[in-house]
Amino acid sequence: MADLILAHGTVINREGKLLSDRHVLVRDGQILAVNEGPLPAAGKVVDCTGCFITPGLVNLHTHTPMVLFRGFAEDVSINDWFNTRIWPYESRLTPDDVYTGARLAIVEMIENGVTAFADHYFEAGRIADAIIETGIRAELSPTIFGLGEGVEEAIDAAADLIQQRRNENSRLTFRMGPHAPYTCPAPVLQAIVRRAKELGVGVHIHASETSVQVTESLRDQGMTPFEVLAGAGIFDLPVTIAHGLWLEESDLRFLTPDTWFAACPKTYLKLAAGEGNLWNFHDRLNVAIGTDGAASSNTLNPLEQARLWALVGKQTSGRADRFLLEEAWRLLMNGHRAMGLPTGDVSEGYEADLVVWDLQQPNTAPVHNPLAALIYSAESRNVRDVLVQGRFLKQDFRVVSLDAREALAAADHAARLLFNEGPGQAKVTY
Amino acid sequence: MADLILAHGTVINREGKLLSDRHVLVRDGQILAVNEGPLPAAGKVVDCTGCFITPGLVNLHTHTPMVLFRGFAEDVSINDWFNTRIWPYESRLTPDDVYTGARLAIVEMIENGVTAFADHYFEAGRIADAIIETGIRAELSPTIFGLGEGVEEAIDAAADLIQQRRNENSRLTFRMGPHAPYTCPAPVLQAIVRRAKELGVGVHIHASETSVQVTESLRDQGMTPFEVLAGAGIFDLPVTIAHGLWLEESDLRFLTPDTWFAACPKTYLKLAAGEGNLWNFHDRLNVAIGTDGAASSNTLNPLEQARLWALVGKQTSGRADRFLLEEAWRLLMNGHRAMGLPTGDVSEGYEADLVVWDLQQPNTAPVHNPLAALIYSAESRNVRDVLVQGRFLKQDFRVVSLDAREALAAADHAARLLFNEGPGQAKVTY
Repeated sequence: MADLILAHGTVINREGKLLSDRHVLVRDGQILAVNEGPLPAAGKVVDCTGCFITPGLVNLHTHTPMVLFRGFAEDVSINDWFNTRIWPYESRLTPDDVYTGARLAIVEMIENGVTAFADHYFEAGRIADAIIETGIRAELSPTIFGLGEGVEEAIDAAADLIQQRRNENSRLTFRMGPHAPYTCPAPVLQAIVRRAKELGVGVHIHASETSVQVTESLRDQGMTPFEVLAGAGIFDLPVTIAHGLWLEESDLRFLTPDTWFAACPKTYLKLAAGEGNLWNFHDRLNVAIGTDGAASSNTLNPLEQARLWALVGKQTSGRADRFLLEEAWRLLMNGHRAMGLPTGDVSEGYEADLVVWDLQQPNTAPVHNPLAALIYSAESRNVRDVLVQGRFLKQDFRVVSLDAREALAAADHAARLLFNEGPGQAKVTY
Repeated sequence: MADLILAHGTVINREGKLLSDRHVLVRDGQILAVNEGPLPAAGKVVDCTGCFITPGLVNLHTHTPMVLFRGFAEDVSINDWFNTRIWPYESRLTPDDVYTGARLAIVEMIENGVTAFADHYFEAGRIADAIIETGIRAELSPTIFGLGEGVEEAIDAAADLIQQRRNENSRLTFRMGPHAPYTCPAPVLQAIVRRAKELGVGVHIHASETSVQVTESLRDQGMTPFEVLAGAGIFDLPVTIAHGLWLEESDLRFLTPDTWFAACPKTYLKLAAGEGNLWNFHDRLNVAIGTDGAASSNTLNPLEQARLWALVGKQTSGRADRFLLEEAWRLLMNGHRAMGLPTGDVSEGYEADLVVWDLQQPNTAPVHNPLAALIYSAESRNVRDVLVQGRFLKQDFRVVSLDAREALAAADHAARLLFNEGPGQAKVTY
C-alpha cells in the first residue's frame, strides 16, 4: 500500500508531456506507480484535482549563503562587483553566517519548487547541516581558491569533509569545487582532479564566464580556460561548468556526456557578460539551469532563469519559433541527470521529488498551455506543494520543513551585523 | 482628520528616494500629508512597520481582454502569431468575453501593484464597465482598424463612447486608438486626429514595432511609420507610442514632451523583435513601462517588464553600470505622467494611488537595497496592499475590490468556449 497518493493531478513528465487525471503513488520515498482510474487505499491522499504534478526543479549552480548579499552589489561592473563589493565582505563571513544564509536560500528555493541544488561555497560543512535539517536535496562542492597560501590544506579539508559526510544522508552528495581556472593554477587543478578520482566524485567549476577571461587565459597561458581544464584532466570526471558562456567552438571537443553546463542567464544579463556562445552551441551541449548566487542574480528561482534562457535565445537568434517551451522545460529537468540523481520524472521507480502546481491563479489562467503557464508566467505563488523523497517541504503554499520566519529573521540579523562592521580583506583579486 | 493613515512605513518616492518611518495621511482619496513623529488621530490606521510605501505601478500599454489568449500563441513567428493564432480567434470575441477578460486582467494587475493602466482594445465600453466596478484607474483607447469597410463608423463609435462615458468617473479617461500606421491609411489617421482634437483627448497607437514594419513603410509610402504619424498630425496631440522599438534617429525630431513610449521588453524578446533603438535612444525619449497583452507577454506585471528593461539594457550596452535601478524605477513612475494622472508620488496633494510592499520575504530579504529588491526580486507575493484614491483594492495580500475567484472562473469558462468553437475570420492580415 502507498504511504501517500497525489490524486487526480495532471502529470507533466520530464519531456513536457501531459498525462491527465493521474494518481502518483508514493511508498518509502519512491514513486510506486502512476495510475489512472479508481483511487487505491493509501496512508494519506492529497487531492490534486486541477493541479499539475511535475518533477522538482533543480538549481545546478548556486552559492546559497550569498543571499546575505542580495541587493548589495548593484549596477556595478564585474570587476567592482568582485573587488569592491563581494570579496571584501565575503572574507568576513563566519561559519554561522554561511549556515544562516544557506537556510534562507533553502526557504526561497523550496518556495520556488526546487527539490535539489548544486552549491559551490566555502564552509560547506555548515551548508550540509542546513541541507540535512531542511529536507532538501543537494550536491556540495567546497570552494577551493588555488592562489596564495594554504591551498594544499584547503584541498585536504575539502576531501576530509567529503569523506566524513558523504554517507550521512542519501539527499547529500559532494563534488570537488576548484573555483576557476583563473584562480587555480594548473598544478592545483591537477591535484584536485587526482583527489576527486580517489574519492570517486566529480568536479564543479567556473570557466569562461566572460570574454575577458578567455582573452587573458590565451594571453597568459596560451590556452583557453577549457584547454586549461582539459590539460588538468578535468573532463575525465563528471564536471559541471558554471557558466561556460564564452566557450569557443574548439572547446567542444573536450566535452563528454558527463560534462554539463549550468546556465544562469539573469547573471549574464545583469553583469553584462555578453551573448557568448552558450545559446549558439546549445544543441551541441548538455545544458541545465542554475540561478547563480543571489548577490548577482538576486533570486534563486530556476523557472525565472529558464524563462530568460528562452527569451534571450529568441532574441539573439532572431527567431521567435526557436528555444521552444519544451526545450526550456527539458533544461530544467536536465539538472536531475547532471547531478546523477535518482529523480527527475514522474514515473515508477523514481524517488518522489515532486512539485504540485496550482495554475488556476490570476497570473497563469486560463491554462491553454501548461508549459507556457510554467515557463512564462508562474511565480512562487503557483507552487502549492514540494516533496523530496515523498516528504512535504512545502504544503498547501507554506514551507513546512523548517521555520521560514525564523530563518528569514536570522539571515536578516546576520546581514546587518556583517555590513555594519564594514569590509574585510579580500582573499583574491579579480 | 485623515480617513486613513498608512503608519510607520518607509516611503519610496517617485525618484526612488527613501524616507523612513513615515505616516501617509489620506483624506477623500488624496494624500493630506506625509508625516514623521507621533501618529495623529484618523478614521483608520493601517500599520506599515517594516513595509515600503510607493506610488502605484502603471501599465502604459496593454490589451486586457487578451488574457483569454494567455499561452495560446507560443513559439511562433510574429506573422503566425497574428495570422494563424490571434486574429482569427480575436474576431470571435463577444462583448461579454471582453468584459470577462478585462476583469481577470484587472485582478492580475491589482495583484502586481498596478493602480492604473492604458488599454487598447475593441468593445471598450465593456472594459469601462470592468474598470468602474473594480476600483482600478485606466485610460481606454477603443481600437480602430483603418482597413476594409466600416472605418468611419468605427471612428464615430469610438468618439461616441468617449463622449458618453468621459465624465462617468474620475478614474476613467479616454484616448483615440488607431491601431497602427500599417493598418490605418493616412486619411484615416487624419480623421482620427481631427476627432481627437475635437474631443480634447490624446492618441494611443502602435508604431515601428519591428524592423520589417519600418522597411515596408519606407518601401510602400516612402516614409518611416513616425513620418506617417507626423504627416497625419498625431504629434500635435499627447501620444502614447507602443512600442516604437525600431524608431529611427531621424524620427526623434517629431517627438514632443507629450510623446511617450510604452516599453514592453518581454514581448520584444518573446517575439524576437530585435534590439531596435529604444535602448539606444532611451535618454532622448520619454519612456514608461507597459506589459502588452498577455497573448504575447503572458503576464501583466510592470515590475517584470522594468526588470527586463534594465537587464536587456545592460546586456545590449555591454555595461553593467548602466540602466540603473533608479532609472528602472523612474520608468515605472513615468506612467503617471504619461497618462497625465493626478497620481505618481507619495506626497501632499497627490491622489492616494499607493502600494504597500512587504519585502521581508524569502525572495527579497535581506533588504540592503529596497529598489533592488523591487526591481530584481519582487513578485506579486510582496504586494501587501494596493489603494486607488485611498480605497483598498488589495488588502493584506488579498484582492478585495472584486471577487477574484469568480473573475478567474468566468474567464476560464469564456476561454474554453472560445477555443472549443474554433477560429473565425480575421478582420485584417498582418
